[in-house]
Amino acid sequence: MQHRKPKDFSDRIALGITLALRFIADTFFAKRYGHRAVVLETVAGVPGMVAGMWQHLRSLRGMKHDSRGWIKTLLDEAENERMHLMIFIEIAKPSAFERYVILLTQAVFWNFYFLLYVFFPKIAHRMVGYFEEQAVISYTQYLEEIEAGTIENVQAPSLAIDYYGLGADATLKDVVLRVRADEEGHRDENHCMADLLIKTAGEPLGNRFENIEAKRATDAG
Amino acid sequence: MQHRKPKDFSDRIALGITLALRFIADTFFAKRYGHRAVVLETVAGVPGMVAGMWQHLRSLRGMKHDSRGWIKTLLDEAENERMHLMIFIEIAKPSAFERYVILLTQAVFWNFYFLLYVFFPKIAHRMVGYFEEQAVISYTQYLEEIEAGTIENVQAPSLAIDYYGLGADATLKDVVLRVRADEEGHRDENHCMADLLIKTAGEPLGNRFENIEAKRATDAG
Repeated sequence: MQHRKPKDFSDRIALGITLALRFIADTFFAKRYGHRAVVLETVAGVPGMVAGMWQHLRSLRGMKHDSRGWIKTLLDEAENERMHLMIFIEIAKPSAFERYVILLTQAVFWNFYFLLYVFFPKIAHRMVGYFEEQAVISYTQYLEEIEAGTIENVQAPSLAIDYYGLGADATLKDVVLRVRADEEGHRDENHCMADLLIKTAGEPLGNRFENIEAKRATDAG
Repeated sequence: MQHRKPKDFSDRIALGITLALRFIADTFFAKRYGHRAVVLETVAGVPGMVAGMWQHLRSLRGMKHDSRGWIKTLLDEAENERMHLMIFIEIAKPSAFERYVILLTQAVFWNFYFLLYVFFPKIAHRMVGYFEEQAVISYTQYLEEIEAGTIENVQAPSLAIDYYGLGADATLKDVVLRVRADEEGHRDENHCMADLLIKTAGEPLGNRFENIEAKRATDAG
């Protein structure tokens, strides 16, 4: 089985969007995994930033504490995806056409994901969980091509060596292994967040304000 | 002298907006420093998030490296201001009216600051620099009231003790001293960023893409 089994209608929507985008990516990139990584990492850096920003703004205006640490987790995810991008552009330089596609995609995807996150946060996290499953599949295929010698196992970019603390003789394969492990982490985090939103009735933030009210009532009583 | 001297027209705009908002805050809160802190920290958490998000999206779509570390600095600023808010709502509970003001203010200010940041990032950072100068003045007055005994020097909230690593017997005064030091840091960072935008012709991000081009040209040559 390649993906988490959808449990309800909203999971099916999230999976449907993911598979549709997978189809577009397959058509567009085929086996050009380096280019695929560059373009898809420009997209992958969006959800964590949108979700982290939105939870931050909700925390401020609702005076609710981020007691589960979602904001940091989400912003760290965004930063990690940006670092993946910086690493892969040293391996595969995007074409001029791809650069325009990236501009257009960000404009569309940022707004799409923002609205999805505001109105259907569970679907949004589930969708990122499914996206990351696809990323893991894609990086696994990348690894297979490197191992088969179809893609040259070049020297790792210096940025990747610094970021992951790799040895000076590290190669592309080492980098792809680390990046894939990161995506596995984001996959689990986002599926877990979608699950938690069901359990906590859509409320990831602790209601500090009500907690204080309750505490004062107890103190006074 | 209470504030950095404006050096050009855009600095004067930033200072003018700041002093106008200061006047509104003075009228609204007078010497209710706890309430002032709560409401203003809900606003203070916005600029770092807007600026960090925007630089992140620019980094992704332009494939430019955040070589000066602005994104992390800005997002850390946003998190720090959110923590200030969480600390002060344990000291001064906002009224129902203030809670509505906070909702309205965030909706207006987020959009205002976003547009300002996209089109006039230098003014935006300068304005936050001036905002933070005002925050330092305001927390200094808060301290004077605590020292004069007008405001009771209550026990520090447990969240503040954890966040700043204070002793168990820490008081409100210790907390305000730490918060003021944070604001001094943000003041200097934002003025510095505004200055840097002049020096680097509006470009905080390193142009990694061009760097690689240049490197390849050198390697080939």
